[in-house]
Amino acid sequence: MAICFPDTQGDAPRIAIHLSRVGVTNVKKLLRLERPGKRPIILTPTFDAFVDLPSDQKGIHMSRSPEAISEVVDEVVSSSSVWIEDLCAKIVERMLEKHEYAARVEINMESEYMFPRESPVTKKESQEMCKLLANAVGIRDENGKISIRKSIGAEVVGMTVCPCAQESVREADKNKLLEFLDEETCAKVLDTVTFASHNQRGVGTIVIEVPENQKVEGEKIIELIEKSMSSPVCGLLKRPDENATVMNAHKNPVFVEDCVRNMVETIIEEYSNLPDDTLITIRQVNHESIHRHNAFAEKISTLGGLKEELNWEE
Amino acid sequence: MAICFPDTQGDAPRIAIHLSRVGVTNVKKLLRLERPGKRPIILTPTFDAFVDLPSDQKGIHMSRSPEAISEVVDEVVSSSSVWIEDLCAKIVERMLEKHEYAARVEINMESEYMFPRESPVTKKESQEMCKLLANAVGIRDENGKISIRKSIGAEVVGMTVCPCAQESVREADKNKLLEFLDEETCAKVLDTVTFASHNQRGVGTIVIEVPENQKVEGEKIIELIEKSMSSPVCGLLKRPDENATVMNAHKNPVFVEDCVRNMVETIIEEYSNLPDDTLITIRQVNHESIHRHNAFAEKISTLGGLKEELNWEE
Amino acid sequence: MAICFPDTQGDAPRIAIHLSRVGVTNVKKLLRLERPGKRPIILTPTFDAFVDLPSDQKGIHMSRSPEAISEVVDEVVSSSSVWIEDLCAKIVERMLEKHEYAARVEINMESEYMFPRESPVTKKESQEMCKLLANAVGIRDENGKISIRKSIGAEVVGMTVCPCAQESVREADKNKLLEFLDEETCAKVLDTVTFASHNQRGVGTIVIEVPENQKVEGEKIIELIEKSMSSPVCGLLKRPDENATVMNAHKNPVFVEDCVRNMVETIIEEYSNLPDDTLITIRQVNHESIHRHNAFAEKISTLGGLKEELNWEE
Amino acid sequence: MAICFPDTQGDAPRIAIHLSRVGVTNVKKLLRLERPGKRPIILTPTFDAFVDLPSDQKGIHMSRSPEAISEVVDEVVSSSSVWIEDLCAKIVERMLEKHEYAARVEINMESEYMFPRESPVTKKESQEMCKLLANAVGIRDENGKISIRKSIGAEVVGMTVCPCAQESVREADKNKLLEFLDEETCAKVLDTVTFASHNQRGVGTIVIEVPENQKVEGEKIIELIEKSMSSPVCGLLKRPDENATVMNAHKNPVFVEDCVRNMVETIIEEYSNLPDDTLITIRQVNHESIHRHNAFAEKISTLGGLKEELNWEE
Repeated sequence: MAICFPDTQGDAPRIAIHLSRVGVTNVKKLLRLERPGKRPIILTPTFDAFVDLPSDQKGIHMSRSPEAISEVVDEVVSSSSVWIEDLCAKIVERMLEKHEYAARVEINMESEYMFPRESPVTKKESQEMCKLLANAVGIRDENGKISIRKSIGAEVVGMTVCPCAQESVREADKNKLLEFLDEETCAKVLDTVTFASHNQRGVGTIVIEVPENQKVEGEKIIELIEKSMSSPVCGLLKRPDENATVMNAHKNPVFVEDCVRNMVETIIEEYSNLPDDTLITIRQVNHESIHRHNAFAEKISTLGGLKEELNWEE
Repeated sequence: MAICFPDTQGDAPRIAIHLSRVGVTNVKKLLRLERPGKRPIILTPTFDAFVDLPSDQKGIHMSRSPEAISEVVDEVVSSSSVWIEDLCAKIVERMLEKHEYAARVEINMESEYMFPRESPVTKKESQEMCKLLANAVGIRDENGKISIRKSIGAEVVGMTVCPCAQESVREADKNKLLEFLDEETCAKVLDTVTFASHNQRGVGTIVIEVPENQKVEGEKIIELIEKSMSSPVCGLLKRPDENATVMNAHKNPVFVEDCVRNMVETIIEEYSNLPDDTLITIRQVNHESIHRHNAFAEKISTLGGLKEELNWEE
Repeated sequence: MAICFPDTQGDAPRIAIHLSRVGVTNVKKLLRLERPGKRPIILTPTFDAFVDLPSDQKGIHMSRSPEAISEVVDEVVSSSSVWIEDLCAKIVERMLEKHEYAARVEINMESEYMFPRESPVTKKESQEMCKLLANAVGIRDENGKISIRKSIGAEVVGMTVCPCAQESVREADKNKLLEFLDEETCAKVLDTVTFASHNQRGVGTIVIEVPENQKVEGEKIIELIEKSMSSPVCGLLKRPDENATVMNAHKNPVFVEDCVRNMVETIIEEYSNLPDDTLITIRQVNHESIHRHNAFAEKISTLGGLKEELNWEE
Repeated sequence: MAICFPDTQGDAPRIAIHLSRVGVTNVKKLLRLERPGKRPIILTPTFDAFVDLPSDQKGIHMSRSPEAISEVVDEVVSSSSVWIEDLCAKIVERMLEKHEYAARVEINMESEYMFPRESPVTKKESQEMCKLLANAVGIRDENGKISIRKSIGAEVVGMTVCPCAQESVREADKNKLLEFLDEETCAKVLDTVTFASHNQRGVGTIVIEVPENQKVEGEKIIELIEKSMSSPVCGLLKRPDENATVMNAHKNPVFVEDCVRNMVETIIEEYSNLPDDTLITIRQVNHESIHRHNAFAEKISTLGGLKEELNWEE
């Protein structure tokens, strides 16, 4: 005799409260994205997938969420050009089909991402790792009309040199130099020497909303993050590379606040064509070498808001 | 000759953007809070501390933030009754004094917290660990008037039993029992037997805003979280305790969604006197024993919003 | 004028102590391994790489270690059949070449690994994630002769059901059933019913040394780990799959100790042809659903030692 | 009718293999240790507790392990001078009593530990956090005689400056200085200036075996670790403190290998009275600011072995 499995989820709940988000977290996949004219991208993303739940239903049909992720991940393998925020949007669409009772669906994704990098002097090639981020949120209105907003982002490690500590070392050394140098020679020495400071790993993050029919390249975001710090870092540095990295970084000292403001500037320059309501998140965390704690700075705004603050005109 | 250390932070920045949050993260302290008529509480909290930064200033004076935390932590040691959300509010006040240019200050704190627990049958005592959460946000308006909002919360592990899987096991076993039992006896057996299901560690979270001159006890929040799941867990269970824990949990199966709704109900019952605009966050994450991924449910609302959804009347 | 970069590492150290291990940790790569007749394997491994350092040398040439990893990872892409313990052995060889002063080189690698899995009833396919482990240690003796030992392993999540708690639930329910059932009917009911217990995610680990010219398949290790627990877990389970998983798991309850002993048995059966001095590590950690802490069991032995304990004869 | 709970653990196992280690991991406690003449120490340790399991027994009596930890933790509260490795030894003794079938018991403990620190110039006080480590292993021989070996250790964050990169910056700057300075003035400038390098958080670890009736102070170990790096770090540094920290660190550049060798030297000086077979583990991990990966060095030896390598004579 066939067992009739009860649909406990479909029951009315004892406490009739609508839930904001119900779903699965930490769903892992392997993903290969083909890109016309470029090398394919291989990712091992982790997905979180949420739907809202009406107050008259006991539970969501939980297995439909990993099922939607699996189906879409399998389909895009044969597709020729999908980028990760589109992948998230496709999963949102599939989940809205499967969870017919949901009015809001949210997908968050993050993945390690390997990109090639040359060392600055000896041009040694190595693979570097960063995090790619993407998300999509779909809303189904009362007439069944669906609107989806999606974003792409990255989190990249670089090197930051503290301008304040460098300035203070320079002042301290200047006092000692003036004991045996005249002011003019001293000034030339100060202009020449690479003064010490504290420096450390910094982690920069940018997430940008991607409007329908627009493209924001992950590689470009990685580049903007790296440029905002004192220097990019590299897995493979021979001695001249290490020297160049340290010297260049110390010529470009930045506070955690500077990194965020640098990213604001380059984002506006790069993406000035995007709509004013494009949501932008920028963050920098420095693993201070002189403290056990970290330094942090953040700016969350729309592109229009950033332009207005800077009186930006094209 | 004394060195004049330059105030690099006070300079004007090249890119004049206001920053939402600048500060320090992962600042660790040891803290002993006296409580009248109760055992003192010992915590090892981790603090994040942020201020906003005006567009005309290059950096915040970073060391003032850990300094504010240190000072307040030192002061409350000699105080006789401070609870953790008040501690966060005090740090906010101190930081508003020290960062005279800031209009918004935010403190987030989390700490391990040990509480005593008896096993259900043999009454063995053990220390159990959960997380305490607290935060405070202070706003300084244009006239210099300061308003602070603060919250307290907890994150507690318990055990959840899946009602759907239990129902399906019961159906499958019922089919087999009916091969040798009449319907009436079978019904009695079904009422008697503790049917299997999948069960797992669940992590429940509640964060409640605490209005000025009101009190929300951390111990009470821990209790509400534990009651929302199938059973509390315990570090020290002798065999009769283990039996009671498993049998009780299976008499009280709950979905991840049920846990959140259970917490909604007990929060309204316990805190109906708090103002309608009190912000409440409720979350449950189950480490599913049949999957590698987790199940998740969340409700974020005001107390008034929750009451309205449930047509709550006192 | 060309800068002559000093070889500070080559200097004599002030304190002439030989160091056991010097190197790099947390080096990340993307790796595609072709396998004849099978789908290629894609990994994102993390490497640790160590050499010993003679007492008369200040430092190792650190960049040669990630360089060796990079070179070998690049080379195996075009190779047709390399498995991960061979990859580690090749990196060991390359590092012995580059660090001509080293007498011992060690490579440890771990990587997420996706494998396909069908759900037990509805045969839904999904990708499942586990960890692959590999390592290799090379020794260069005084005559320059090199010997390398290498291992492969995996760490896999499954589900474990506690036999003790299940037995106690069965006893408790039996007492209640005997109030209205005769002994014979009661016995039949006890044989039929799927009694509750606590169950949870368990993590099984096997690492096996791989002798020269022998093969130990990663997929086989994953299979042995999964078979040692009450049930494998699966990302995508429809309702009949969930039912089958829970019922099968409860028919096969295992202690953390049983898991390890089960793995001992199947390893001897599967790999009885390997030499007696083959080193074997077996471990199980259960994330107990009734406790905040974990249960743990471990056996470290040689294959010969295991056979001897069990009086194994082929 | 009272339920007779079956002792499933006492059964004979199907596969008669002795297990090396069976137990519990991640057991958390709050602990207050009084010390005569010093401030009390407050810890929130995490314990792992293992026993071996004979081949003729299905499982250990798992609850006796957290019970032994709880009992001893409760007892030492009223004791007047117990240090953490003694605490571990006491738990080993208690577990040998409770697990009468075990021939080997192992306890590992780690805890955050707050210690006070003054900033170098302005003498601001702050709490600093490190990890304390302890373990004990007890062996019961065939005559029931018990011997216990125990260790204490610490893991401390400090700052390391790379000597190689600093040397190369100095060389590069020297070339530029010689364009407008004579050799003698240049030499004086080179002696005066604090040249840049890469610097970062380093994590030093020492674990020392503690013979019966001997004492090894945790505070002393922390001091030796901090002294081995370029500079200690501090949570609260005003501008002159930051300057002093950076300048001092750059006067004392160290490789990851130097840190380990520095610790070897100070350990021999400090603990030359301990027996030659005292086991010593020394480790350093630097979170390189110019790479995504870490640098690592390690020495594991006996005190006698270290003395012999250095031809140490008192």
